[in-house]
Amino acid sequence: MSHKIAILGASGYTGAELVRLIATHPDLQIAALSADRKAGEEMASVFPHLRHLDLPRLVTIDEIDFSGIDLVFCALPHATSQAVIATLPRTVKIVDLSADFRLRDPEAYKKWYGKAHEQPELQAEAVYGLTEFYRGEIRKARLVAGTGCNAATGQFALRPLIAAGVIDLDEIVIDLKAGVSGAGRSLKENLLHAELAEGWHAYAAGSTHRHLGEFDQEFSALAGRPVEVQFTPHLLPANRGILATVYVHGEPEEIDATLRKAYENEPFCVVLPMGDLPSTRHVRGSNFVHLSVVPDRRAGRCTVFAALDNLTKGSSGQALQNANLMLGLDETMGLMAAPLFP
Amino acid sequence: MSHKIAILGASGYTGAELVRLIATHPDLQIAALSADRKAGEEMASVFPHLRHLDLPRLVTIDEIDFSGIDLVFCALPHATSQAVIATLPRTVKIVDLSADFRLRDPEAYKKWYGKAHEQPELQAEAVYGLTEFYRGEIRKARLVAGTGCNAATGQFALRPLIAAGVIDLDEIVIDLKAGVSGAGRSLKENLLHAELAEGWHAYAAGSTHRHLGEFDQEFSALAGRPVEVQFTPHLLPANRGILATVYVHGEPEEIDATLRKAYENEPFCVVLPMGDLPSTRHVRGSNFVHLSVVPDRRAGRCTVFAALDNLTKGSSGQALQNANLMLGLDETMGLMAAPLFP
Amino acid sequence: MSHKIAILGASGYTGAELVRLIATHPDLQIAALSADRKAGEEMASVFPHLRHLDLPRLVTIDEIDFSGIDLVFCALPHATSQAVIATLPRTVKIVDLSADFRLRDPEAYKKWYGKAHEQPELQAEAVYGLTEFYRGEIRKARLVAGTGCNAATGQFALRPLIAAGVIDLDEIVIDLKAGVSGAGRSLKENLLHAELAEGWHAYAAGSTHRHLGEFDQEFSALAGRPVEVQFTPHLLPANRGILATVYVHGEPEEIDATLRKAYENEPFCVVLPMGDLPSTRHVRGSNFVHLSVVPDRRAGRCTVFAALDNLTKGSSGQALQNANLMLGLDETMGLMAAPLFP
Amino acid sequence: MSHKIAILGASGYTGAELVRLIATHPDLQIAALSADRKAGEEMASVFPHLRHLDLPRLVTIDEIDFSGIDLVFCALPHATSQAVIATLPRTVKIVDLSADFRLRDPEAYKKWYGKAHEQPELQAEAVYGLTEFYRGEIRKARLVAGTGCNAATGQFALRPLIAAGVIDLDEIVIDLKAGVSGAGRSLKENLLHAELAEGWHAYAAGSTHRHLGEFDQEFSALAGRPVEVQFTPHLLPANRGILATVYVHGEPEEIDATLRKAYENEPFCVVLPMGDLPSTRHVRGSNFVHLSVVPDRRAGRCTVFAALDNLTKGSSGQALQNANLMLGLDETMGLMAAPLFP
Repeated sequence: MSHKIAILGASGYTGAELVRLIATHPDLQIAALSADRKAGEEMASVFPHLRHLDLPRLVTIDEIDFSGIDLVFCALPHATSQAVIATLPRTVKIVDLSADFRLRDPEAYKKWYGKAHEQPELQAEAVYGLTEFYRGEIRKARLVAGTGCNAATGQFALRPLIAAGVIDLDEIVIDLKAGVSGAGRSLKENLLHAELAEGWHAYAAGSTHRHLGEFDQEFSALAGRPVEVQFTPHLLPANRGILATVYVHGEPEEIDATLRKAYENEPFCVVLPMGDLPSTRHVRGSNFVHLSVVPDRRAGRCTVFAALDNLTKGSSGQALQNANLMLGLDETMGLMAAPLFP
Repeated sequence: MSHKIAILGASGYTGAELVRLIATHPDLQIAALSADRKAGEEMASVFPHLRHLDLPRLVTIDEIDFSGIDLVFCALPHATSQAVIATLPRTVKIVDLSADFRLRDPEAYKKWYGKAHEQPELQAEAVYGLTEFYRGEIRKARLVAGTGCNAATGQFALRPLIAAGVIDLDEIVIDLKAGVSGAGRSLKENLLHAELAEGWHAYAAGSTHRHLGEFDQEFSALAGRPVEVQFTPHLLPANRGILATVYVHGEPEEIDATLRKAYENEPFCVVLPMGDLPSTRHVRGSNFVHLSVVPDRRAGRCTVFAALDNLTKGSSGQALQNANLMLGLDETMGLMAAPLFP
Repeated sequence: MSHKIAILGASGYTGAELVRLIATHPDLQIAALSADRKAGEEMASVFPHLRHLDLPRLVTIDEIDFSGIDLVFCALPHATSQAVIATLPRTVKIVDLSADFRLRDPEAYKKWYGKAHEQPELQAEAVYGLTEFYRGEIRKARLVAGTGCNAATGQFALRPLIAAGVIDLDEIVIDLKAGVSGAGRSLKENLLHAELAEGWHAYAAGSTHRHLGEFDQEFSALAGRPVEVQFTPHLLPANRGILATVYVHGEPEEIDATLRKAYENEPFCVVLPMGDLPSTRHVRGSNFVHLSVVPDRRAGRCTVFAALDNLTKGSSGQALQNANLMLGLDETMGLMAAPLFP
Repeated sequence: MSHKIAILGASGYTGAELVRLIATHPDLQIAALSADRKAGEEMASVFPHLRHLDLPRLVTIDEIDFSGIDLVFCALPHATSQAVIATLPRTVKIVDLSADFRLRDPEAYKKWYGKAHEQPELQAEAVYGLTEFYRGEIRKARLVAGTGCNAATGQFALRPLIAAGVIDLDEIVIDLKAGVSGAGRSLKENLLHAELAEGWHAYAAGSTHRHLGEFDQEFSALAGRPVEVQFTPHLLPANRGILATVYVHGEPEEIDATLRKAYENEPFCVVLPMGDLPSTRHVRGSNFVHLSVVPDRRAGRCTVFAALDNLTKGSSGQALQNANLMLGLDETMGLMAAPLFP
C-alpha cells in the first residue's frame, strides 16, 4: 500500500534530495510539491536531473489539499517552518527539516536563533530526529524535527562515548569539514564557484555555530550535567560531505569498543577497523555513516572520525528514515543505494 | 529468481560501478569478483564505498567456478579481454566492457588497436552493445561488446540523423568534453589531481582517438557509404560525465523531429525542448542521456547536444541494461535511480 | 617616473586582477579605486588577497579628482561604462574593459546589446583593444576598448588565417570552453558552487553569444566580405581559463606556418610545435596565449587551439598591455610573471 | 650583480615553483637545472607553463659544473638529498627543500624517518629554515634546511605563543587541511584526480605524521621542556594551500597581542583583525601567511588560524627568502607578487 506524501519547499536542495530518494521507494507516492516563488513551474525546469520522473507541478502551500496526505516533509527555511506546520491538520504526520523544532528549551531556541519561538506547544510535541537514538519515540511521533547536518555528524561520533562515560567531558574538540550544499541554494557571494573553489576557511568559529544548541542539548542530557564542546566548522570546495574530526581524552580501546557496540546492529552506521580513516567520498550520495577511532601517540587521547553526506544522512536521508518509522515501514526502504564513487 | 553473475576486473572503476548498480537489482546476485593483482583482498579495502555490501572476496579468474554462473561482466583492460573470454564455457553469457569486440572488421581492429585480433571467431559472434539500436540482437546474443563511452555519446546524437538522411555526411564535427574517470584507475602522471585540476585540454586530437573506429563502423553502416567525422575529445577537471557538442549541416526542425521520434519510447533517452542545453550534472550517476537540438543563426546548420555519465550509461549502466535483456529481464531493472545533484 | 592611474569598478574580478598585476608594475601608481556599492570600504575587506598592499580606500566615482590621473581603467558593467566615460576629462586616457566600445557599427551594437548606443562619438573614437593587431592605433589612442575574453581567444586562433586567406571562410566552427570567473562576481543561481561544480554545459548556443558581434566585425573586416562563424561557448567547473577548439578547412602546414609567422615576434603569443595540445593550466594567471595546429585525418582539414587566462590575457592583462602602450612604456611591464601551476 | 644558481630536482613541483619565482627575480640567474630521469629534456616539455622562459636544458647532477654556482636549491626526494649535498663543493651555498636536515637530533631523525642519518656532520651544520625565526643564523649559514610545509604552518601559529608562555603546553591540538600538491608529482593511486576529487579524509592520524618531529624539536626548544602536540593533517580536493586550525587554552586577548607583536614588522606575516578567518584562497601562489585568533565561547580557550600556500611560503618561497638572506640580498626579492584570486 502506498502512502501519499507532500514536500513543502521542494525547490531547495533538501527538497530535491527527498524526491531523488523517494523516486525508488516502493511504498511512497509524491502527491504534492510546493515552492512558493516557483509555484506553477514544472519540477523538471527547477531540477533538470529529476526530469525523467512523473511529478506533480509545483504549487503554493495553500493549494495543497492535505486531507489525502499521510506525511509531509517540510523543507522550508528556518523560522518559516513553524508557522506553516501550525496550520497543517493534525491527521498529517510531519518530518520537519528546518531548525525550528530541534531545541526543546524555548530559551535555547531564542539564544541560538535570535527570536522567541512562535509555536511552543508544537515544539514541546516534537521528537528530535536522530533516528538511531530516538527510534522508539519517532515511531510514535506526529512531528519529528530533523537534526542539523553538522550536529548529526558530531553526535554519531560522540553520543555513545558520552553516554558510556568514557571520555573527559571538558576536553572535547570537534573540527568539522563540510561541503557547500549544506548552505542551500541561496544567492550569497561566498557561495559562488569563483569565490569558493580552490580555497577553504573556517566559519562561525569560536563555537558560535547554531548547531551548538543541539550539541549542548543532547550531550548535556546524556551526561546529566552541562557539556560544552569546542566546535569549528570549515567550508570546503566540494558539494557534498561532512567529516568530523573529534579530539577526545580517553582510552582508545575502550572508545573503539564503545562505538562498535553502539552501532553493531545499525544498518547505516559502519565502524571501520581501528586506525582506518573514513572519507566523505565513500559515503557520497548515500545514507551511510563511516566512523573510526585512532589512538594518539600520547596515552589517554584519541581522535574519533565520522563521515556522512550532509544532504542524505545529514538531512533528507535521515528524514526519509524517520518517515519510514512513522509510517510503520521498514526503516531502510529507499535508502540502501550504494555511495557514488568516483 | 536470481541470476548468478561474475565480474572480472572488479578493482577498476567500471567494475565498481557494476557492483554499485547491481546492489539494488532484485534479480541479480554477485557470485564472484576477480582482480588479479588484488586477489585475496576484500572489496571493502579496494572500494570502501561498497563496504556495506556482503560481497565475495576478490579472487583470480582461475579460481572462479563458472559452472554456476549465468552471466559474466568482463571489465578487463583492452587486449586482455579477448584471451580470457575465449576460455569461458559457452554456457555463460558475456557482456564485455573492453574495446576488444567493438569492431566487426578485423582490419579496422588492427588499424585502431595496433595489432591483429586474436579471437576472430568470437569477434564475429559479438553483438555491438548500444542497447537502443541493437536490442533485438542483444536479446539473443551470447557475447555483447560494450561500446566506448565517447562512442556511445556521439552515436546517441547522430545515429537517428544519419539513418534518416537529414544531415550532410561530410560536415560532421563532434567536439566532446569528458571527465577523468573514463581513463580508469591507472597510474599516469596526467591523471594526478595536481596535474588535472584547474585546467583542461584536448587529447587524441586530429581525429586519432580509437573510438573513431566505432564511429566509422556504425555511421558508415547506417549511411551505406563511408562516413568520416571530425572528432576532438577534451579532458576536464571533473570525475564523471561526457558532453558531446555536435555541429551538423541540416534543418533544425527536421533534426529535432527526427531525434524526438527516434527516442519517443526509450526509457533512458530524454530529448529536451528545442533550444534547451543538457548538462552532465543532470545525468550524473544515472543511466539517462539528455539530448537537444539548437538551431544556428545560419540557416541549414545546427548543434546537437548529448550528455551522459561515462561510467553509467557510457559503460556499466549500458552493460547492465544489456545483461537484463540477455537474461530476459526488464531492461530497466536496477537502472532507474535518479541522478545525483548537486 | 610614475603614472597615476584610477580603477573604476574595483570590486569586481577584473578590477581585482588589475590591482594584482599593477602591484608589481614599477611605473604605475594606483591613485584611486571606485566601487559604488562598496564605497567607503577598504579593498582588503572586499578582496582579502590584496591585503598586503597599500591601497586607497574605495570611493564613488564622483569622489575622484581626475585632474591628477593619467589613465583610467574602467571595469564597470556593460552599458553603464559609456555614460561614465562620457563625463571624464579629455586629458585622461581610458582603457575600458566593458563591452560598450567594442563594436564600431552602432547598428551592430544595438543588435547584440539590445539598445541604442548613447555615446556614438566616443564609440567612433575608440580603438579595438586586441593589442597584437591594433598596436599602432592603441599607442596613439585616448580610448581603447578591451575585447571580450572569448572574442580574444577565438581571434588569436583565426585572425592570421583569415588575413592570409588560408581557410574556407564559410566553414569555421569555434567550440569554446571557459571557466566561471568570466561571468563576474554577480549573484546568479547558475554561478553557485553547488550548481556548477561537477558538471558542464553549453550556454548561448546557436551562435547567439554577444561576442559574435566582435567576431563578425573583425573577421569580416579582415576578409573584406561578411564572415559568420559558428560559435558555442561552454561553462566549465573551474575558475580561470578559456580554451578555443577551432575547426577549419585548409592545409595544416600552411595554417601552422601562417600562425607561426604572425606570432614570431610576439612576447605573449606562443605557437607550440605542430600536434602539441595547449592546456589552460599552463597559462593560468599569466598574460600568455598558447596556440597550436593539429592536422585532421582528412586532408584539407585541421583544428586550431588557443588557450589563455580570461582574467589576464582575456581582460585585465590585455588592458594593462594596452595601457603600457598608451603611456609610452614597455608593453610587457608588469606582465611577465609565469603562470601558476599546479 | 647576478648570482648564479642551480636547482637540483627541477622536475618536481617545488623545483618548478622555484623557477616560477626566480623568473621575476632581478638578481638571480638560473645556470643549471637537474632532473635525473628527465635529463636531456627541455624544461618546457616537463612543465609547459614555463615555456616562455629561456632555461637551460635538464641535466644529471654529475653534468653540472658547480664551480660557477653561487647557490644550490636542492629539491630532491627525502633521503636522497643528504648524499648529494655531501658531494657539493663547500664554496657553494645550499638551500635544501627535503626533510634531510630539518631534525638536529640524529635520534629524532632515525625515529621519524626510519633509518640513520648518513651525514651527521652536515646535519650539525644545517640551520633550520623558518626564516622569520632563524634570520640571523640563516644569513651566515652555508646549509639551510627548508621546513616541512605543514610544520611551517603550525609553527607560524604557535611559536610566539609558546615562546611567550601564554598557552597551556599540554593541550595543543593542530587540525590541518592541505591541498594535494604537497604530496608531489609521484604516481600514487590516492593522488589520482578520480580518487581525490569530491572527497576528503585525514591521513597520518594519531600524531604519526613526520612533521611532528619538527614540532617536537622546535616547540620543546622554545618551551625549555618537552612539548607534544596532537596533530591531524587532512587531504583536500584542491591543489594548493594549507589551513591550520589550532585549538589552545589561554586568554584570547593575550594570545592575539602576542601574535600581533611577533609579526608586526614581518613583511610576509599578516595578522588579521581578531575574529576574522583566514582562507587559503587569499594567499594562493604567494609568500604570505594569514593568521588570526578567535576567542571561544568558553573563557580561557581560543582558536588560532594560519593559512599559507604550501608550494610558496611552505617550501619554494621560503627557500628563496632564505637564499636572498644567504646572498646578502633584500629578503623580499622575487616574493612580493600578490596571491592569485579567484
